[in-house]
Amino acid sequence: MIGEEFGADRPDAEHVWVLDPIDGTKSFITGRPLFGTLIALCRAGRPILGVVDHPALNERWIGAAGHPTRHNGTVVKTRACPSLDRAALFASSPHMFEDGHGEAGFTRVRRHAKLIQYGSDCYHYGLVASGHGDLAIEARMAIYDYLAAVPVVEGAGGRVTDWQGQPLTLASGDRVLAAGDPALHQQALALLGE
Amino acid sequence: MIGEEFGADRPDAEHVWVLDPIDGTKSFITGRPLFGTLIALCRAGRPILGVVDHPALNERWIGAAGHPTRHNGTVVKTRACPSLDRAALFASSPHMFEDGHGEAGFTRVRRHAKLIQYGSDCYHYGLVASGHGDLAIEARMAIYDYLAAVPVVEGAGGRVTDWQGQPLTLASGDRVLAAGDPALHQQALALLGE
Repeated sequence: MIGEEFGADRPDAEHVWVLDPIDGTKSFITGRPLFGTLIALCRAGRPILGVVDHPALNERWIGAAGHPTRHNGTVVKTRACPSLDRAALFASSPHMFEDGHGEAGFTRVRRHAKLIQYGSDCYHYGLVASGHGDLAIEARMAIYDYLAAVPVVEGAGGRVTDWQGQPLTLASGDRVLAAGDPALHQQALALLGE
Repeated sequence: MIGEEFGADRPDAEHVWVLDPIDGTKSFITGRPLFGTLIALCRAGRPILGVVDHPALNERWIGAAGHPTRHNGTVVKTRACPSLDRAALFASSPHMFEDGHGEAGFTRVRRHAKLIQYGSDCYHYGLVASGHGDLAIEARMAIYDYLAAVPVVEGAGGRVTDWQGQPLTLASGDRVLAAGDPALHQQALALLGE
């Protein structure tokens, strides 16, 4: 088990739980209801179950490998958005990309996107899974910030990788690219890496 | 009556209603629940009644000149925060300040603040009124985006003006500085105008 608040216990086990009790601490302390609880179960390093839960909104997305993602019990799907100029893009904050954390790549994607919304915390993964938005791009994150999102978004039809297009695992770095439409994922990936 | 969606009818009347049916359109279309409805009543150009309503969250702040502000019926107060380095700052987006819309001033305040949260829409005025945050700074806004916030924040003990410290009226420009603590308002005002 690996948690943001309590370190790691047997992180090399076949099955590992990865927990973030409060993702979006700044939202939590300022009264914004978008903070959430993230729970991932990994097998052999890969996330096979993910829960994105928002207690203040009574909303919960659950995704599992081989099963359709559900939002409060109802199956959800990402929406088609093959072109970045029609995409709604989410990121926690523009400032997280500064000082060598991918600002140029993020800015390229942002300038091509239809709109950008900051400050949605992990709720933005749910919005992508449910087809309300199209892209979420993050940097300076830890595994407990994003592994739960992988089964949720992919089980709804999307794609979630790092900025090199590699699958996210217990050993991944600090960057996330989540897209509802796999074609859009490819387009954003190219701009991030240019 | 003046509305974002339907123009102006007798805008020079003694009493004028100012309405924004959906403030936070980008949130509304991307499934983020922070969008709101803003209603202000002005007398002789000054807002004397304000409603900040969030239908997706079942939250409503009502402020009126000479009365304490209420959130879902309960009186709320801003919190003391006389020093910017302890302040939670809100703004809709950093990009609205670009291209000559006050970026240097905003950046000075942001760099001194304890934390910055983007993307709260008009909900941030309620958060300041209720003492969950301390400052909201906006540019490129219209009167229907901010007049309702004036009685709400001021009726809770805060201060709301333009970036020159002038009261907001039907004739005001596009910039807003709202603070829960009047001492903090003075400090932010000085940095915005440097």
